[in-house]
Amino acid sequence: MRKIRLGIVGCGIAAKELHWPILKELRDKFEITAVNSRTRKHAEEFAKLVGSPEIFDTYEELLDSGVIEAVDLTIPIELNVQFTEKAILKNIHVICEKPISTDVETGKILVNLAKQTDKVIYIAENWRHIKKYYKVKEVLSKIGKPLYFNWKIWIGMDRNNKYAQTEWRKTPKHIGGFLSDGGVHHVAAMRLIFGDIKWVSAITKKHASFLGGPDFLEAVFEFENQVVGNYTVSYAIKSEETFEVIGTIGKIKLEGNKIIVNDEIIEVEENMGYKEEFEDFYEIILGVRKNELGSPEEALKDLAFFEAALKSNGDRIDLTSLL
Amino acid sequence: MRKIRLGIVGCGIAAKELHWPILKELRDKFEITAVNSRTRKHAEEFAKLVGSPEIFDTYEELLDSGVIEAVDLTIPIELNVQFTEKAILKNIHVICEKPISTDVETGKILVNLAKQTDKVIYIAENWRHIKKYYKVKEVLSKIGKPLYFNWKIWIGMDRNNKYAQTEWRKTPKHIGGFLSDGGVHHVAAMRLIFGDIKWVSAITKKHASFLGGPDFLEAVFEFENQVVGNYTVSYAIKSEETFEVIGTIGKIKLEGNKIIVNDEIIEVEENMGYKEEFEDFYEIILGVRKNELGSPEEALKDLAFFEAALKSNGDRIDLTSLL
Repeated sequence: MRKIRLGIVGCGIAAKELHWPILKELRDKFEITAVNSRTRKHAEEFAKLVGSPEIFDTYEELLDSGVIEAVDLTIPIELNVQFTEKAILKNIHVICEKPISTDVETGKILVNLAKQTDKVIYIAENWRHIKKYYKVKEVLSKIGKPLYFNWKIWIGMDRNNKYAQTEWRKTPKHIGGFLSDGGVHHVAAMRLIFGDIKWVSAITKKHASFLGGPDFLEAVFEFENQVVGNYTVSYAIKSEETFEVIGTIGKIKLEGNKIIVNDEIIEVEENMGYKEEFEDFYEIILGVRKNELGSPEEALKDLAFFEAALKSNGDRIDLTSLL
Repeated sequence: MRKIRLGIVGCGIAAKELHWPILKELRDKFEITAVNSRTRKHAEEFAKLVGSPEIFDTYEELLDSGVIEAVDLTIPIELNVQFTEKAILKNIHVICEKPISTDVETGKILVNLAKQTDKVIYIAENWRHIKKYYKVKEVLSKIGKPLYFNWKIWIGMDRNNKYAQTEWRKTPKHIGGFLSDGGVHHVAAMRLIFGDIKWVSAITKKHASFLGGPDFLEAVFEFENQVVGNYTVSYAIKSEETFEVIGTIGKIKLEGNKIIVNDEIIEVEENMGYKEEFEDFYEIILGVRKNELGSPEEALKDLAFFEAALKSNGDRIDLTSLL
């Protein structure tokens, strides 16, 4: 099997804890041949963990090394566009952590770039590969016509949370802090079930002083298919998560990996989506399929929801006005 | 004990099923001395039910009869203002069913009239007398600072529902059909807990063809005390009602007459508020207290929420712009 020679750029939490366990599993598809991190020590630790890739002091040296065909970017959000552009310029495929960029305007650069290059630009949105959301979509017809979707997420990070401690998250250059950083996952999931979102009206608040940016969002919105949505998320307050869809003749609830459709309980195999995402990236590079789930367009739509929500202050913002 | 001589005007569902059982109980405070209804037959049936009040063919004759000091108006909403004005002109106290009027503009007529007369104009909002909501307010401090309030109500009326069959409800002259007619109760309850509402952004839908007006509302709003609110109501779809308040250090849920505050369960005595409302009206007439819970101002604020929600279409409407 053909192996993609991969350079890991950014050796923080995401690379170590989320990507590496999967790349280890996918050894027959990816070979980590190069690493680079702002902090040399992190690069060395990561190199030791994964085998013996070459360590590069700069991203540019890594790109010019000739030992890689693709880069995996797990870097501060504000560097996504610039780092992706540099890789594409060197004819190197890119898989880059979500959100696509700090804001919609700069995110568009990658949407346009993807149209001009034959290299892959893959925005790694693992939630677009989580099976339970596809299962929810599949059973929608059991509740008649879906009318209303409601998702309340109470994450309640504490002061010592490792993500909250990341320097670039403490003083975020990306819009909305955790709201967009964590939230694009949620919007990716709801969009894969109900399709594109037409408009949003929202209010944000800041409840925890130690979190960068606002940490509470209450949004009402409408999908293109006329389903009305309501999304509540707090990164400061911990409480019970609820997810439900109301249809003309029934209700779907999602509780962990259990989907409750009217009186029926469906257990869904848990998956985090990282494996499927890297497999998808691999097959797109090989030309097996087009880039749909990892396309910059999709990632931009997820982010646009938050840009609209943050602008809204209770007013209706049509997403097409941003996209 | 001094008895108020009361004329019942409108002998429909509200008079027969909601007011009469209470007035029977409060015989020592109210004596039904006159009735009038558009349909003579309804007036006769009602008269028979309550004893032997005089039956009047017209409202004007009832007002001029000299046998009443107060009227109880349970009439189509669009008649509230005109009927109240006529009573006040004849120096007769008024208790009138909610909502105050068809819309905020005409409702203001009663607010102003109340300032000019020494007679009582009491808008009968029984939910402002329901004990469990006061209990919720009382225990709020147990969850720290309240941040978020969420109420989802799925009434799901069927085609044969007696209210849905009322002629003036089928082709409503009041804004929003059931949304305002039923909804002022909900807003009265939330306002008694959290205080006045600053702004609302909402979307309405019509899901059931047999209900007059829109029947679904999804609203996000903010109280003056900065609590963010979310209110979902459907008169077409039946599902489970949920009511919760999230605070900095806990949560309150209301399930029927059970208040769950963090891990504590508080059972509250059920009351519908009609008795307390008529007792309040009685004592205000006697000068025991001022009209606070039945004032036209309060009723107008409840209605303004719906006028804002109906105008919104996703945009933010400040309630002060209507009041």
